[in-house]
Amino acid sequence: MIKVGFIGLGQMGRPMARNLVQGGHTVQVHDTDTAAMAALADHGAIVCASVADCAAGVDVLITMLPNGDVVKAVLFDEGGAADALPDGAWIVDMSTVHPLASDGIAKEATARGFTFVDAPVGRTSDHAEKGQLLVLAGTDEAGVAHLAPLFDCMGSETVVTGAAGLGIRVKIINNYMSIALNALSAEAAALCEAIDLPLDTAMKVMSGTPAGNGHFTTTWPGKVLKGDLSPAFMIDLAHKDIGIALDLANQMHLPMPMGSAAREQFSAARAAGRGRQDWSAILEQVRASGGLPHH
Amino acid sequence: MIKVGFIGLGQMGRPMARNLVQGGHTVQVHDTDTAAMAALADHGAIVCASVADCAAGVDVLITMLPNGDVVKAVLFDEGGAADALPDGAWIVDMSTVHPLASDGIAKEATARGFTFVDAPVGRTSDHAEKGQLLVLAGTDEAGVAHLAPLFDCMGSETVVTGAAGLGIRVKIINNYMSIALNALSAEAAALCEAIDLPLDTAMKVMSGTPAGNGHFTTTWPGKVLKGDLSPAFMIDLAHKDIGIALDLANQMHLPMPMGSAAREQFSAARAAGRGRQDWSAILEQVRASGGLPHH
Amino acid sequence: MIKVGFIGLGQMGRPMARNLVQGGHTVQVHDTDTAAMAALADHGAIVCASVADCAAGVDVLITMLPNGDVVKAVLFDEGGAADALPDGAWIVDMSTVHPLASDGIAKEATARGFTFVDAPVGRTSDHAEKGQLLVLAGTDEAGVAHLAPLFDCMGSETVVTGAAGLGIRVKIINNYMSIALNALSAEAAALCEAIDLPLDTAMKVMSGTPAGNGHFTTTWPGKVLKGDLSPAFMIDLAHKDIGIALDLANQMHLPMPMGSAAREQFSAARAAGRGRQDWSAILEQVRASGGLPHH
Amino acid sequence: MIKVGFIGLGQMGRPMARNLVQGGHTVQVHDTDTAAMAALADHGAIVCASVADCAAGVDVLITMLPNGDVVKAVLFDEGGAADALPDGAWIVDMSTVHPLASDGIAKEATARGFTFVDAPVGRTSDHAEKGQLLVLAGTDEAGVAHLAPLFDCMGSETVVTGAAGLGIRVKIINNYMSIALNALSAEAAALCEAIDLPLDTAMKVMSGTPAGNGHFTTTWPGKVLKGDLSPAFMIDLAHKDIGIALDLANQMHLPMPMGSAAREQFSAARAAGRGRQDWSAILEQVRASGGLPHH
Ligand SMILES: NC(=O)c1ccc[n+]([C@@H]2O[C@H](COP(=O)([O-])OP(=O)(O)OC[C@H]3O[C@@H](n4cnc5c(N)ncnc54)[C@H](O)[C@@H]3O)[C@@H](O)[C@H]2O)c1
Ligand SMILES: NC(=O)c1ccc[n+]([C@@H]2O[C@H](COP(=O)([O-])OP(=O)(O)OC[C@H]3O[C@@H](n4cnc5c(N)ncnc54)[C@H](O)[C@@H]3O)[C@@H](O)[C@H]2O)c1
Ligand SMILES: NC(=O)c1ccc[n+]([C@@H]2O[C@H](COP(=O)([O-])OP(=O)(O)OC[C@H]3O[C@@H](n4cnc5c(N)ncnc54)[C@H](O)[C@@H]3O)[C@@H](O)[C@H]2O)c1
Ligand SMILES: NC(=O)c1ccc[n+]([C@@H]2O[C@H](COP(=O)([O-])OP(=O)(O)OC[C@H]3O[C@@H](n4cnc5c(N)ncnc54)[C@H](O)[C@@H]3O)[C@@H](O)[C@H]2O)c1
Repeated sequence: MIKVGFIGLGQMGRPMARNLVQGGHTVQVHDTDTAAMAALADHGAIVCASVADCAAGVDVLITMLPNGDVVKAVLFDEGGAADALPDGAWIVDMSTVHPLASDGIAKEATARGFTFVDAPVGRTSDHAEKGQLLVLAGTDEAGVAHLAPLFDCMGSETVVTGAAGLGIRVKIINNYMSIALNALSAEAAALCEAIDLPLDTAMKVMSGTPAGNGHFTTTWPGKVLKGDLSPAFMIDLAHKDIGIALDLANQMHLPMPMGSAAREQFSAARAAGRGRQDWSAILEQVRASGGLPHH
Repeated sequence: MIKVGFIGLGQMGRPMARNLVQGGHTVQVHDTDTAAMAALADHGAIVCASVADCAAGVDVLITMLPNGDVVKAVLFDEGGAADALPDGAWIVDMSTVHPLASDGIAKEATARGFTFVDAPVGRTSDHAEKGQLLVLAGTDEAGVAHLAPLFDCMGSETVVTGAAGLGIRVKIINNYMSIALNALSAEAAALCEAIDLPLDTAMKVMSGTPAGNGHFTTTWPGKVLKGDLSPAFMIDLAHKDIGIALDLANQMHLPMPMGSAAREQFSAARAAGRGRQDWSAILEQVRASGGLPHH
Repeated sequence: MIKVGFIGLGQMGRPMARNLVQGGHTVQVHDTDTAAMAALADHGAIVCASVADCAAGVDVLITMLPNGDVVKAVLFDEGGAADALPDGAWIVDMSTVHPLASDGIAKEATARGFTFVDAPVGRTSDHAEKGQLLVLAGTDEAGVAHLAPLFDCMGSETVVTGAAGLGIRVKIINNYMSIALNALSAEAAALCEAIDLPLDTAMKVMSGTPAGNGHFTTTWPGKVLKGDLSPAFMIDLAHKDIGIALDLANQMHLPMPMGSAAREQFSAARAAGRGRQDWSAILEQVRASGGLPHH
Repeated sequence: MIKVGFIGLGQMGRPMARNLVQGGHTVQVHDTDTAAMAALADHGAIVCASVADCAAGVDVLITMLPNGDVVKAVLFDEGGAADALPDGAWIVDMSTVHPLASDGIAKEATARGFTFVDAPVGRTSDHAEKGQLLVLAGTDEAGVAHLAPLFDCMGSETVVTGAAGLGIRVKIINNYMSIALNALSAEAAALCEAIDLPLDTAMKVMSGTPAGNGHFTTTWPGKVLKGDLSPAFMIDLAHKDIGIALDLANQMHLPMPMGSAAREQFSAARAAGRGRQDWSAILEQVRASGGLPHH
């Protein structure tokens, strides 16, 4: 049993805090929305009138708030949570915040003698309800072991990233990829419709190719990730094919801004002399455009 | 045993034609590159000095050429293949060509009394060597049955799309998606590196989320594809999160043009009043931007 | 007085041909649309039933057609204009066509013994009506002198580009710039509205800065165009400021895809070590991304 | 003679403060960089050890700092400038900050009894040296009259925007437009080079068209700005022409991400049924994409 303070009882925080109570922990909660607190009281949480009250006497303080500015204010404003939090307590921020903001908060928390862990969550509020979140813990095995009694109430899986700051970093990367991919998938699906290709047919084909399975585990490991850029499928051909798709889309009056941006990347790769390299070399192209060191 | 003409003996055509010979078919070949023809002769193909010779007397004429202009010229220029091809023969274009160009070629072939099938291939030249291509056949079961003796020499899987023109269409969609996704994946991977997040950690997390598995079989079926836009994860939050990633990338001096384009799509979705809809509603947003009819 | 054939009597060709007639030239016209020909007949043009008839006996054949494929077909298809055109005649294509298609047409025309000039026009159909087009002539002074009696009927200004192919090239560049700039201006104006800034105020300010006057004649000549990249205004600051605008637009739910793409270019410039160079160095950045040789 | 506090003596602030001293005002200066202060002392400014000292006793406090966070901290942190500033003093922020941050600062300044004016500057540090900045004053005629003795030392032109917050808003819009336009111009210029078109020829042509003169004062006033969308030059043709330019650029391996994004905007306009509207209707398209009310 751990004594927990929980600040931020929104769509995510509410079920997370409830699951902690139901897991047998003592949970003090706070939110600026009193109705949100009342709902938690019904489940057995202790309602606190201020963030300071909520932090008083706890072992672990969890924040689940809209963004880094709010987390920072809640913790470090005058009369904030940090002023009331016992020495040596843990602060676990489970919100999705800007990694650099998170780093700043971590620094201040550490300077004040607390242990700070960034532990944002993956999946959705439905999963929060069922205690099936994915916890991305910015700490090592020991840190996760310490927090496991809590994480296990809220989530069904914890990724141990191994170091401070990596929890929020992997969260942001994962969301970047899945959110942008959503928009890209929409372009492909809309183009199917525009050219009278049943989406089922397209999905069936794509389920067996990198279009559906991604590149991380298919085309990259045997090629760019081990430094082999000899072509299985050439950048030049990739540029040709995406050009056909975009021309088609433009004839159908379907805007595809992401595909358009992609084509220019392949064009840049050709300009950089990569036309006859494997298409996975687009990774090297993007790395170079960001000034990342030559592999 | 089928009598086949095969025009275009490049990186793909060469192994494909060889596999047809090795499968026991009589194969007449032609390419403007005589060295390419010589290589096939060694494997037992009949070398033809012209496209007309190559088409003379065959049951099925296969083309595997750089683009639609070349296919059209090879077939329909004066003294071209179509002039020599027996009445009722089949023309199977396995090149990757613009679907509208393919439609035009199909139309002319049909007008001249031939059966035209678009049957482009998926996968790479390595697969061509091993006879393990994916054949995307723009025809129905009967058409595929007719051509199976050939397809089965060249590929290990044939998708029956059911109708003329759908082979090349699904090919283009698949390539669009996989090519653009490659560039998007590169942005995510480069950002990992720029923020000192081990790619392994990121890939491990993404292997369990839509970031790694795509949306077609994960987030879409239960939501947008059945018309349910109630939020599991809101457009507003997706917009927030991708904004964090882009700000981070900009601070790291890493250009992410595709992610940037994606953010503007989510911004447009919010402007269209979709902020509190499920993120899969981005499909409806893209559809609307292309004037596709309201579902 | 010149004997002219004129093919293509659309929104542009109709008034252009009419102005030639009214300028005293003998004009034979053709269009697939017979109504279009009839209208010209009323003005005194000679209607021709075929492109060949239209080319027969003329000194100069002018084409004003939708695109390069049509121009090519009209000229070089069997029984086309070139078959009937007198040896040594001039062909002047005033359509907007792909420069590489134009080059191909020029080559074939030249091979057949004609003089080919690309002479696309700037401005609009209103200007065509009034004989006030801008003629962009892909030829030298002598060529323009030869054609001046015609150009002067149709346009009020002729730019002598000096060499074959440069007429259509400068046309495409000009249109690229003005069309894309139109969309960019729309983003700026819409953002004004979204933030309640009167457009008049913004326009007044911009009328005195590169925002309204462009960079070609303001910031570039003293800096990047003479190889001086010492900062009057730094890339780093430009990146900062455009980032503020985009953040603001995103908060206002206003998609600005062009500005977004621009920011990533400045980000790439920073990654390439140009952060403290003058903002006009973005030209060097774009040049480098296209593999253009170091200055 | 006005008693002025000036905080932020960087590339811009240094010459601005110096010009105030030379204009006969009493100027107290502060910067975290003591060398920067020392330079000003040589010119006759009073060096202050803290922001509070710098604010003490002045009529007007000017800030010229990197961003809104710094301005906010300098003014409102404990022991900050606002604590020492005389009641009723004016705070004039001349930095380029996020408009929403500026609004927040204005609000707090006003709440504390000060008059806040956003007055960012246009042009460059060269102009700052010569006292030839463009001052964009977020206030009315009375406000500008009050500050004119100062503005006239630092700048050669003051735009009276008429209301609080409009100074920084017009600054951001102007910079957005000029910065993005810089990158767009670079794409056009690099394409000239890639296709061997002398830049001089292109610039000469563009100097007479909207490509060089912008749309605000040329194509828009007679069309979209007065609600007339009848075509002088159609969206459909604009889409065609920009497509040619992009195809050309792709063939030349020149990435043009901004032009690419523009094409998709024109594609969206066509999808929205605007193909036969005037190209200035792209403004209506962008407005609609941002949910701005129908005109
Ligand atoms: N909803 C999701 O699917 C999801 C998934 C993963 C991560 N997240 C992240 O989780 C965090 C919370 O998301 P949410 O969906 O629960 O948001 P929400 O807006 O529903 O909840 C935020 C809660 O914080 C409270 N709050 C705000 N300011 C406060 C303050 N100063 N003091 C006390 N309480 C305050 C609000 O009253 C609200 O109850 C966000 O960072 C979000 O990005 C959300
Ligand atoms: N390489 C791949 O991984 C791959 C995968 C799937 C599909 N494709 C598609 O397959 C097609 C062929 O690709 P490839 O990689 O073999 O290309 P390639 O350039 O290696 O081969 C093309 C061949 O066509 C010949 N050719 C060109 N014009 C000819 C003409 N007029 N008459 C006769 N022969 C002519 C060339 O000499 C060459 O041998 C393309 O459409 C390509 O997009 C390629
Ligand atoms: N409209 C403008 O503002 C403008 C401005 C500058 C340049 N342009 C360019 O000028 C050219 C003509 O534009 P437009 O606006 O007059 O187009 P349009 O579509 O109004 O006219 C084209 C004409 O060509 C005729 N035509 C098509 N195929 C033909 C064939 N095979 N034989 C004979 N006639 C044929 C059509 O019947 C039509 O009358 C285009 O290349 C366009 O890009 C147009
Ligand atoms: N440089 C230009 O061409 C230009 C043009 C127009 C507007 N601006 C804007 O003007 C502002 C200043 O630009 P700059 O080029 O002078 O920047 P700069 O970086 O050269 O100067 C900023 C100065 O602020 C000082 N400073 C930072 N934090 C401070 C603090 N807490 N207390 C006191 N001093 C502090 C720094 O030491 C430095 O001297 C920025 O907002 C910039 O965007 C610049």
